[in-house]
Amino acid sequence: MASRSRVSLALRKTRISPASTSKLCRPLIQARYQSTATTEDTEGIAKGTTGTSKTIKFTSETYPSIKRNSKFPQITEEHVKYFKQLLGAESAVIDGVTKDATDDLEPFNGDWMRKYRGHTKLVLKPGSTEEVSKVLKYCNDNMLAVVPQGGNSGLVGGSVPVFDEIVINMSRMNQIRSFDEISGTLVVDAGVILEVADGYLGERGHIFPLDLGAKGSCHIGGNVATNAGGLRLLRYGSLHGSVLGIEAVLPDGTIVDDLSKLRKNNTGYDLKQLFIGAEGTIGIITGISVLCPQRSSAINVAFFGLESYEKVQLAFKEAKGQLSEILSAFELMDSHSQDLVHNVTKNKRPLEREHPFYCLIETSGSNSEHDNEKLEKFLEYVMENDIVSDGVVAQDSTQVRSLWGWREGIPECLGHWGGVYKYDLSIPIAELYDLVNETRDKITAAGLLGDTPDDPVVGVVGYGHMGDSNLHLNIATRRYDKSVEKVLEPFVYEWIAKRSGSISAEHGLGLAKKNYIGYSRSQTMIGLMKQIKNLYDPNGIMNPYKYI
Amino acid sequence: MASRSRVSLALRKTRISPASTSKLCRPLIQARYQSTATTEDTEGIAKGTTGTSKTIKFTSETYPSIKRNSKFPQITEEHVKYFKQLLGAESAVIDGVTKDATDDLEPFNGDWMRKYRGHTKLVLKPGSTEEVSKVLKYCNDNMLAVVPQGGNSGLVGGSVPVFDEIVINMSRMNQIRSFDEISGTLVVDAGVILEVADGYLGERGHIFPLDLGAKGSCHIGGNVATNAGGLRLLRYGSLHGSVLGIEAVLPDGTIVDDLSKLRKNNTGYDLKQLFIGAEGTIGIITGISVLCPQRSSAINVAFFGLESYEKVQLAFKEAKGQLSEILSAFELMDSHSQDLVHNVTKNKRPLEREHPFYCLIETSGSNSEHDNEKLEKFLEYVMENDIVSDGVVAQDSTQVRSLWGWREGIPECLGHWGGVYKYDLSIPIAELYDLVNETRDKITAAGLLGDTPDDPVVGVVGYGHMGDSNLHLNIATRRYDKSVEKVLEPFVYEWIAKRSGSISAEHGLGLAKKNYIGYSRSQTMIGLMKQIKNLYDPNGIMNPYKYI
Repeated sequence: MASRSRVSLALRKTRISPASTSKLCRPLIQARYQSTATTEDTEGIAKGTTGTSKTIKFTSETYPSIKRNSKFPQITEEHVKYFKQLLGAESAVIDGVTKDATDDLEPFNGDWMRKYRGHTKLVLKPGSTEEVSKVLKYCNDNMLAVVPQGGNSGLVGGSVPVFDEIVINMSRMNQIRSFDEISGTLVVDAGVILEVADGYLGERGHIFPLDLGAKGSCHIGGNVATNAGGLRLLRYGSLHGSVLGIEAVLPDGTIVDDLSKLRKNNTGYDLKQLFIGAEGTIGIITGISVLCPQRSSAINVAFFGLESYEKVQLAFKEAKGQLSEILSAFELMDSHSQDLVHNVTKNKRPLEREHPFYCLIETSGSNSEHDNEKLEKFLEYVMENDIVSDGVVAQDSTQVRSLWGWREGIPECLGHWGGVYKYDLSIPIAELYDLVNETRDKITAAGLLGDTPDDPVVGVVGYGHMGDSNLHLNIATRRYDKSVEKVLEPFVYEWIAKRSGSISAEHGLGLAKKNYIGYSRSQTMIGLMKQIKNLYDPNGIMNPYKYI
Repeated sequence: MASRSRVSLALRKTRISPASTSKLCRPLIQARYQSTATTEDTEGIAKGTTGTSKTIKFTSETYPSIKRNSKFPQITEEHVKYFKQLLGAESAVIDGVTKDATDDLEPFNGDWMRKYRGHTKLVLKPGSTEEVSKVLKYCNDNMLAVVPQGGNSGLVGGSVPVFDEIVINMSRMNQIRSFDEISGTLVVDAGVILEVADGYLGERGHIFPLDLGAKGSCHIGGNVATNAGGLRLLRYGSLHGSVLGIEAVLPDGTIVDDLSKLRKNNTGYDLKQLFIGAEGTIGIITGISVLCPQRSSAINVAFFGLESYEKVQLAFKEAKGQLSEILSAFELMDSHSQDLVHNVTKNKRPLEREHPFYCLIETSGSNSEHDNEKLEKFLEYVMENDIVSDGVVAQDSTQVRSLWGWREGIPECLGHWGGVYKYDLSIPIAELYDLVNETRDKITAAGLLGDTPDDPVVGVVGYGHMGDSNLHLNIATRRYDKSVEKVLEPFVYEWIAKRSGSISAEHGLGLAKKNYIGYSRSQTMIGLMKQIKNLYDPNGIMNPYKYI
């Protein structure tokens, strides 16, 4: 990690000081490296089920309008017998059909947000692509509904059953198949945990082109199935660009052998792309080949205060121009979000004064001196031109993590008071923050926002991946209150639809957003998507009740 | 452009001198900026039709096994009348049905390599997406076959008719629709010429994430339809990552309105990906939204000599590690290719001694001093560690172009003696050059290679985008000789198939490789691709006789 000392000398107008570590973000510094401890950007409308509640309501109760499709038969002892014979290993089948296994099944029925809960009585853990193929073929032939499940760290309820769908858990397919140090091509089983792959690559001077809060538990297969975005997208692009090949199994058992290790291969339709972001609705990904970049040796992080959203945009434009090839993150946090983090953690703020907006900039490159110099020049420019009012630069890796804590700790802190209404949105960058202001105005006008225990809303905050035009609009509440929902729905999604934004930037549709896709996609597009679903899964056994 | 002066001081072991410009690549320095003047990587087996011949053989004669599908009716006066009324403008219809228009139709019937030639009697130039929709719907309803055509700069015969298919030329849809300087999102009509878009972006501090020899004539719609690779892929990735949205028209007239400007949008299957590389077989792309990076202010180019392919790989690995975020090209040329270039141009070679292999490295970044320093360190390392034997660094933009000329001039020079057998291949990097050696050995063993006019083969050369594992294997010949073809076929493709390589890295399938896809794709994959084709184009009117 880089250390910095010359910054304050270079800035005449006002101070850019090294970040203080005393008490800075103490409880938050681990947030980036944990999965289930943080609630990074949980999705959809909180139905009063988040927070400290120990009992998860069944999804079938939360969404009474969803009915079990009677075309799927009940799972019988005969089915279970087949799977036990097929998969062999005792541990590969969790059987709640022939005996009571409620406790063993619970982790596979419920999501980590404790928001969705299914009724599955059977969990299968195939150990090879061939086993996945045989399992799916049998399910398809017998009209048995299935839910593919990776690390179960999704945010929209896509990886747990709604009713008694069979869970096909991929955790036993966890081998790194190969890595080529010259080309940077990594081939893995779908069930390899992201952090394991990243650690493996780290020892070989490379990184996985994706990083996110749940890295300690999420599977790469799940990342690809949900087209996860995360923290490195600004620099390394989306999985549609970095995934070189996919091995997947269709419901009829067909193995899609598209596991190319080649960077270029223009021989026909790029079918693997359909599986990226399909959320397990047309098949199960069993293997992935991905292009991994070299690991940067130098990391710098700076944290700024700015006086308006216009200045945030200017700072972003300058960062892209001046930091260019070393810019690896540009994150936005409004004052409301930082006030709530401070309120919860009581940590010393990174900057002395308060500002309406804050940005976190990360650079990563191969030469720490060069990166420092670029960052210094950039800081000097944005300070002298009144774009940025104040700022600090991390001096070591502890401070890097501390500053990140003020961004990554937001979701956790927002949950402090009770439930949170959370939206993961893509919005044209110029209008991105308007939505937060308008939402806050509406909530305020309705008399819902305040500091007393009677006020349902604690705060309306905006933060997110500015570099990707990805806003997280969050409304922290003290309790479930129908009047809050009335202000938000359908206002937020209609606002997005008018601006051709996306109602799900990076978290997918799952169960949470299935009914809202019309705000981001035309009927023509939805029709074309249904064609694809019907083409690959005519029986509709794959992850039913979700997606489109 | 960067200038360099301290390089020779930094290198103790042997000289890295500034590149001489005297007579260096004089006729070649424009190669990179021309389209039809160069023959960059033409495709497939030369049937004796390249070279200086003025008469292009009809494709129907070159490939007598391809028969016109009788389900497509002849075009009648009534059809022409409909199109004239629909498109209005006189210039939008070139009508060879009701009158003789052979000369006017010729540019649309033949490809620029003079290798493929169709029999179309009707060229339509729609001016809007709605017009494309109406044209296609009418063609689909009347079973009229069509060929979408952009800049007609393709290399595999994909953009010209085989028989009397109607050409739908996109040149009238040539407007830049919008550009957002903050996010870098450009939206264009499909018929915008790549160089026009890149120039427009240049004035705004950005670049198009794709660059290739044909930039002066190729359409962006065609680039996307063929998933063009080109010179910037190493740095900016493939179009599957940088294209944000696509507007396309299906054969039945349906407008696929997936022209998102958002970097993140996880709302359903990413259908636009199917059109990237579909070569006009399932619909016509009418609009594209693409993420454009900032333009780098500093460009450096170095040219090395190396003693073995193992050292080339080491140099590549070091370049990725040390030049990391500024590395923008790593090109390989063998001595055989450089000998032939020298033989044709008589230009002074960049290096004093000759070497078995040469590499061209380009860096581009935001700070010229930093980039120079990184390059200097890298050069020092590869020289001191005996990875590289000798090298030069361009001192100015003229030298940059001159050095590029030794790479980009190869295809043009190879055509000097007559026809060229050309292969565009992806191969796992460790084995990449083995194919060139093995091919040369076989050609030599067959007594076909030599310096006399009697020897059919002038040289067997290998060069290409090392950074993308993309080899161009070229066999320069003095004349068509069946015995050469016998050595090459099916040897090359079988060699590729054994190593899970690609028979078309970046040029696509078109007509040239339709029958060879089985060497790179399994029957399962080909079957799945045919499903997609049938789904979107059940009548088979889109670009028939080609692709899969």
